[in-house]
Amino acid sequence: MLKEYLGDVPVGISNRHVHISQKDLEVLFGRSELTVMKPLFQPDQFAAEEKVTLVGPKRSIEGVRILGQMRNSTQVEISRTDSYFLEIEPALRNSGDLEGTPGIIIRGPKGEITLDRGVIIARRHIHMTEAEAGQFGVKDQDVVNVLVKGERPVIFCDVLVRVNNDYALEMHIDTDEANSGFIVNWQQLKVYR
Amino acid sequence: MLKEYLGDVPVGISNRHVHISQKDLEVLFGRSELTVMKPLFQPDQFAAEEKVTLVGPKRSIEGVRILGQMRNSTQVEISRTDSYFLEIEPALRNSGDLEGTPGIIIRGPKGEITLDRGVIIARRHIHMTEAEAGQFGVKDQDVVNVLVKGERPVIFCDVLVRVNNDYALEMHIDTDEANSGFIVNWQQLKVYR
Repeated sequence: MLKEYLGDVPVGISNRHVHISQKDLEVLFGRSELTVMKPLFQPDQFAAEEKVTLVGPKRSIEGVRILGQMRNSTQVEISRTDSYFLEIEPALRNSGDLEGTPGIIIRGPKGEITLDRGVIIARRHIHMTEAEAGQFGVKDQDVVNVLVKGERPVIFCDVLVRVNNDYALEMHIDTDEANSGFIVNWQQLKVYR
Repeated sequence: MLKEYLGDVPVGISNRHVHISQKDLEVLFGRSELTVMKPLFQPDQFAAEEKVTLVGPKRSIEGVRILGQMRNSTQVEISRTDSYFLEIEPALRNSGDLEGTPGIIIRGPKGEITLDRGVIIARRHIHMTEAEAGQFGVKDQDVVNVLVKGERPVIFCDVLVRVNNDYALEMHIDTDEANSGFIVNWQQLKVYR
C-alpha cells in the first residue's frame, strides 16, 4: 500500500464554504465585489468577510464563509457530517464538477437564492507546481496515498494530484477527514506511491 | 502496512453517548433504572430511552442518548468534531480509562450534574470472542490495520483488539471516522496485520 515515499506535504483543512458567482453575490449581498478578510495559501485565493446561511429541508447552518475569487457557478462544499445535519445528499466531486449534484437554498443579508445544483463533498487532493511534481515524481491526475502519523494514525488512499504553476504545495482535506486523524492545519503528511 | 489479511469485521458507528452511574441517573432523571429503547449488537448492552444535554462553556448539545448497562462511573464519549463545538479538550482513551480527563456539565429533566472528569474520545477497537481471535490469529490488546474500501478509501492504523467471550464480533468507530471514509453501519471492513 505504501510502496515508495515521495515527500512531505503540508495540509490545509477546508471547513464548509461557498464559492459564489457575481450574479448570486448581488442577490445575497446587494453588491458586485467580495471583501477580502484574509488571503489563503493558494495564490490569489482568499477568505471573504461575507458569510451566508445554508438552508436545508429542516435545519440550517449559519455563518458559512464565502471564498474568493468569484466563480462562474456558485458551489457549496460541505462535509458528510454537515450533509447529515442538513439532510442533503451531495456526491464526492472534484471542484467545478457540478453536473447532477443537489441544490440548496442560500440566504444572505439582502436576499435568498435557490440553487438547483452545486452542493458537493470535495474530493481530497494535493496542489503542486510542475517543479514540485517533478520532485515528487508524479504528474497531474495521478493518485497517491498519504500517511498521517499521530495519536490516531490513518492512511488516505486514492488522493488526487493536481499540478498547475498557479498552485502552492498543499493538500486539501475536509473537517471529517481532519478530525478522523486528529489533524491540524499545516501538519506535514507523508506522500507515498 | 497491510502485511497479512486476517478477515472481515462488521462496523458499528458510535454517535456521541453517555454511560451513566446509578447515582448520576437518580439526579438527572429521578429514577434508579434505565428504560431499554433497543438492544445493541454487543450482548446485554442497549440504547436507553433517556437522553441528556451536554453543556459546554458556550454551547450545548441536546438529545445525547444514554447507553446501558449502568457503570460505576459516568463517562461521556464525543467526537473531535463535538469537542470543537463544545470547546472541551478530551483525550483519546479506552473506555473506562478516565484518569486526567476533563469534566462537563450534564443536564437531565430532573437535575444537573457537574462531572469533574469523564469526557473522552473513544479509541477505535474491535470486539471479538476467543474463538474469533483464534480464527483471526490475534490476541487481546493486539493492534491491527483496517482497510475501508469505497468511494473515499482509508486505512485505520493502530486499531486495538479486545477479546472477551462476552463480546460479539464488531469494530467500533466514531462518527468522524465513519464520515471520513463514507462508512455506514454494518459495512464489512478488512482486517490486516
